[in-house]
Amino acid sequence: MRGRMMDFPLTLPTLLERAKNQFSRVELVWRRPDKSVSRYTFGDLYRRSRALAEALARVGLKKGDRVASLMWNNAAHVEAYLGVPVAGGVLHTLNLRLHPSELTFIANHADDRFLIVDDVLLPCLESFRREAHFERIFVVPSSGAPVPAGFENYEFLLATANGTFAYPTLDENDAAVMCFTSGTTGRPKGVVYSHRSIILHSLAQAMKDSFSVGHQDTVLIMTPMFHANAWGLPITSVLTGAKLVLPGQHGDAESLLRLIVSENVSIACGVPTVWLGILEELERNPGKWKLPREVSAPSGGSAPPESLIRALDRHGIHITHSWGMTETSPLATTTGLRTYMEDWPDDEKYKVRSRQGWASPFIEVRITRDGREAPRDGQTAGDLEVRGPWVASSYHNAPEEQRSWTPDGWFRTGDVATMDADGYIRLVDRSKDLIKSGGEWISSVDLENAVMGHPAVKEAAVIGVPHPKWEERPLAVVVLKQDAKATPEELRAFLAARFAKWQIPDAFIFVDAIPRTSVGKFLKSKLRDQCAGWKWE
Amino acid sequence: MRGRMMDFPLTLPTLLERAKNQFSRVELVWRRPDKSVSRYTFGDLYRRSRALAEALARVGLKKGDRVASLMWNNAAHVEAYLGVPVAGGVLHTLNLRLHPSELTFIANHADDRFLIVDDVLLPCLESFRREAHFERIFVVPSSGAPVPAGFENYEFLLATANGTFAYPTLDENDAAVMCFTSGTTGRPKGVVYSHRSIILHSLAQAMKDSFSVGHQDTVLIMTPMFHANAWGLPITSVLTGAKLVLPGQHGDAESLLRLIVSENVSIACGVPTVWLGILEELERNPGKWKLPREVSAPSGGSAPPESLIRALDRHGIHITHSWGMTETSPLATTTGLRTYMEDWPDDEKYKVRSRQGWASPFIEVRITRDGREAPRDGQTAGDLEVRGPWVASSYHNAPEEQRSWTPDGWFRTGDVATMDADGYIRLVDRSKDLIKSGGEWISSVDLENAVMGHPAVKEAAVIGVPHPKWEERPLAVVVLKQDAKATPEELRAFLAARFAKWQIPDAFIFVDAIPRTSVGKFLKSKLRDQCAGWKWE
Repeated sequence: MRGRMMDFPLTLPTLLERAKNQFSRVELVWRRPDKSVSRYTFGDLYRRSRALAEALARVGLKKGDRVASLMWNNAAHVEAYLGVPVAGGVLHTLNLRLHPSELTFIANHADDRFLIVDDVLLPCLESFRREAHFERIFVVPSSGAPVPAGFENYEFLLATANGTFAYPTLDENDAAVMCFTSGTTGRPKGVVYSHRSIILHSLAQAMKDSFSVGHQDTVLIMTPMFHANAWGLPITSVLTGAKLVLPGQHGDAESLLRLIVSENVSIACGVPTVWLGILEELERNPGKWKLPREVSAPSGGSAPPESLIRALDRHGIHITHSWGMTETSPLATTTGLRTYMEDWPDDEKYKVRSRQGWASPFIEVRITRDGREAPRDGQTAGDLEVRGPWVASSYHNAPEEQRSWTPDGWFRTGDVATMDADGYIRLVDRSKDLIKSGGEWISSVDLENAVMGHPAVKEAAVIGVPHPKWEERPLAVVVLKQDAKATPEELRAFLAARFAKWQIPDAFIFVDAIPRTSVGKFLKSKLRDQCAGWKWE
Repeated sequence: MRGRMMDFPLTLPTLLERAKNQFSRVELVWRRPDKSVSRYTFGDLYRRSRALAEALARVGLKKGDRVASLMWNNAAHVEAYLGVPVAGGVLHTLNLRLHPSELTFIANHADDRFLIVDDVLLPCLESFRREAHFERIFVVPSSGAPVPAGFENYEFLLATANGTFAYPTLDENDAAVMCFTSGTTGRPKGVVYSHRSIILHSLAQAMKDSFSVGHQDTVLIMTPMFHANAWGLPITSVLTGAKLVLPGQHGDAESLLRLIVSENVSIACGVPTVWLGILEELERNPGKWKLPREVSAPSGGSAPPESLIRALDRHGIHITHSWGMTETSPLATTTGLRTYMEDWPDDEKYKVRSRQGWASPFIEVRITRDGREAPRDGQTAGDLEVRGPWVASSYHNAPEEQRSWTPDGWFRTGDVATMDADGYIRLVDRSKDLIKSGGEWISSVDLENAVMGHPAVKEAAVIGVPHPKWEERPLAVVVLKQDAKATPEELRAFLAARFAKWQIPDAFIFVDAIPRTSVGKFLKSKLRDQCAGWKWE
C-alpha cells in the first residue's frame, strides 16, 4: 500500500520561489573588494538568480551541464548557488586556494563548460585558464572596474533575460552542485550533490539542535563559499529567511567584527583558526567591540580547543562544534549539552562542548574495529563510518576510489573516533595522523588542544616522527602569541597534568606559522615532510 | 546528470533507531485512567515498539495491512505510532468521539485487520465492534484491571517477541499511517500518510520558526492522538529527543496544569478551547499555578482569539498560531513576528499573531478567485489552495472525492483567505461558513473572535441565517462566563468599534454551551439546524 501524498520533489526552485513569496524584503549584505558594504533584498536575489538561470539557458546550458564559479563570498556567488541549479545546471565551486595544476585537473575532470569569476580573481584564473577548457567566461565586476577586454560581463549576461524563464522539470535526485575534496593526499575527488540532498541537509541544519537558523537571525558566513558549500549556510539562510551577511575576500578579524556589529549578526560560522583571530582582536582591544547581541558560532573543520570555547563565551560568542566533510554535505554531527548535564561542573561541560556531538536526524554513524561495531562506551576507538541521504555514495568519475565505501555501503571517513551510549562522537584523530608509539596510539589532536590551552601558545600541531625504538614519537610544532614566552620544559610540565609520560611530545619546536591547507586546516603532510630528516637526541 | 548521494530512504525505522542510539534516557510520561502518572524512557519505547512490530509480524501482519488504534494519549499509543509502521503496517487511528455508525464505516472502509484498544475504551468499542470486522483485538490494560475474557492482552502480545525482529524493506513512499477527516458534511474520508511525508513534516515542524522543538524541550500533547497525528508532535518529539508528556484521557485544565508544572513543560499544543479552559483555571486561582518555565503554545484547529493570546502572555504561556488540516499532515502554516515589526505597537503585533502565518518550507499556498490567482495584497479574499510533499493527493478509495483537487493538482482547502506580500495568510472563513449579506461577505470568524474579546464572554459562534431581504444575516450564539452578564445591546456596542453596522449580528442568543465536533471545533451545521426556524423580527 502506498501513501496517498503528493509526489512533490525537493528541489531548489521551490526554495527560490519561497524566498520571493515570503522573504522578499530580507537583506543580503556583502563586502566588496574595496571594503565597502553593499546590500540588496531577497527579492533582488530572486530576480537576479532567475535572470542568471534564464541567461544561461539562452547561451545554451543544458541539463546537467557544469558551471564553475571562482568567487569570494558575495551576492553574485549566492546567485550562482541558486541560479545555476534552478536552470538545471550543476554549480561547480572552484577552490581558489588550490595550486594551478589542481585547478586545471578539477575543471577538466568536472568538464566545466562555463565559468563565473570575480574580477579580482582574474589573476588566479590566468594561472590555469589556458589548460582548462571553459567555453565562456563571465566576469562579475565586483571591484567596480571595467571588465577587461576579451571577457564577457556577468551583468550583460543577466541583462539578456527578459523574465520569461520557466524552470525545467527537475527530479530531486538530479545533480545540483559539485565540490572537490581538498585532500592532502591523492588527486582531488568530486562530490556531486543532488537537489534532494541539499534540501534535506538544510532542513536538518536549520533545526534548533543543529545551527538553529530562523527568520529572525542574521547569518555571517566566514567559511568560504568555494569549499563544502560554505557548510550549507547560504541555502539554509534563504530557506529560513535569515538575513545573510558575506565578508567578500576580507577574512581578517577586524573586518569580520565590523560586520558582526554593524549588521547585528546572531549566527557566524567559521573554522577555529578564524575564531582564534577574532578572539585575539577582542582581547587586544578591550572595550572596543560591543556586540549587539549574543552570537551563536557554529564551528567545524577541526575541533575547537576548549580554551577557545571558554574565552569566546566570555565575549558573548558561543561556539557550537559540528563535524562533517565535503562528502557529508558537510553537516553530520553537532554537539550540545543534554538536560541531565545541567548541574555538571563547568569543566565537564566544556569537555562535552568540544566533542563532535551526535548525528543529525537521518545521518547514521558507527565505529568499527577489525570489521565489527565497537562498543558504545565512549572509550573504544575505531574507524568512523557514516551514511545518510546527504552522504556521497561515490565520487565523480573515479571508480578507483570506491574503496572509500564499505561493502555494505557506509562511507569511510578516515577518522578514528569513540562513541558513547548517548551517541556522542569524539574524534581521536585522522587515522593517518594517529601517532603509533610502542604499540600504543597517541592522539595528535588531544595533544594539540592541550598545548593550545597554555596561555603563551597561539597554535600548535603535533605529528608523529619516525623513531628507531618506538616506531614513532610525538613532536610538537608551536606558534607562540605575540611577545609571549614558553620553554619546552614549561610546556612539558603543563601537559604532565593531563597526559601520561609516554604520551607527551619528546620535542617542541617553535615556529612563526604552521603550514595550512587551502581551507585553513593544519597541513600535517607538509610538517611531516619538513621533519623528515629529524634526528631524535 | 544525477547526484552521487546515497539512496537513503526517509522511513520511520531510522527515526526509531536514532531514539535508541541517542536518546535512550529521555523520558516519556503519561497519565493513567486513575490519574496516576507513569514514566519510562525512550529506550523502553524503542524496545516495546520493536516488540510490537515483531509480535504483529508473528500474528501475520503483512506489508500494508491496517492496524487500528482506539486509544487515548498514552505510551502504548506512541508504541503503535512507531511499532506498526516499522513493521510495514499502516496505523489507523480511530477517532473515539465519532458516532458508532461512523466508526463502523471508517473501520470497514479502511479494511482494518487488527485493533489495539485501551481497556477503558472497551465500552466505546462495544458500540460498533459487531459491525466492524477486526480479526484480532489487543487490549492495553491501561487501567490496571484484568483484561476481560474474550479479549487478548496487549502485554501478552508484546511478550511473544524475542528481540530477533528485522525491519522489512520499506520504500519511503509506502503507507505508514491513516487518518479519517472529521468533516461535518459527507462521509469521512481517509488520508494516507507515507513514511516520507511524516518525516518531512516532522523536520519542518521542529524548525525554529515552526514549533521549535529540540532535545532540551518537554512537550505536552493536549491534542488527541486519534486526530490528525496529534499534529505530528509525537513523532517530532521522538525525532528531536524532546521529553514527551501525555495526559491520557484527562483533558481538564487542572490535570493539564499539574503536568505542566510537575514535568517542567516547555511546549504544549492544544486547540484554543483547551487554552480557554486553562486560562479560566489560571484566573480563577491567582497565585496557585507557578509555571517552572515559559511555555510555548502551538495552537491550531481554529484561530485563537486575540484576547486569549494576550491573556495567556501574561501567564507566561505564548501562543503561536498554526494552520493545517488532516489533509496537510496537518502543519501547513505558522505565524510569527518579522524583524521589521519589532517596534510596532502591541495591538498590531497581536493582530499578526492571530493570523495563520506563512507556509512551511516546501508547502506552497495560493489564493484563487474565479480560477485565477488573487493579488497578494492582504485584502483580496479567495479560495485557499495548497500543495507540497505532506499534502494528500487523493483519499483512500474515494474517487468521487477527487473534486477536492484542482485540475493542476492543488488541494482545495475549503477555506477562504487573503495573503500579503510576505506570504502571511489570514483565513477569512470556511467557504461554507461565510455569511452572504446583500451581495457582501461577512466573516463569521472575525465576529466570533471579536465577541470573545468581550470580558463577559466565554465563547461565541456566529452563523448566517436566511433573511428575506439580505439573503443571510449574522446571528451570534454566546456563552457567558460564570456569573458574568452582558446584554445584546452591550455586545452590539462593543462590536461597533471594529465593524461596520451592516456586519454586526442582528441577534444575540445566550446559551449554556455551543455544540462541538468530535475534535472540539464549533459544530456550526448543528447550530444552523437549531436555528432553521429562526424568524427575524
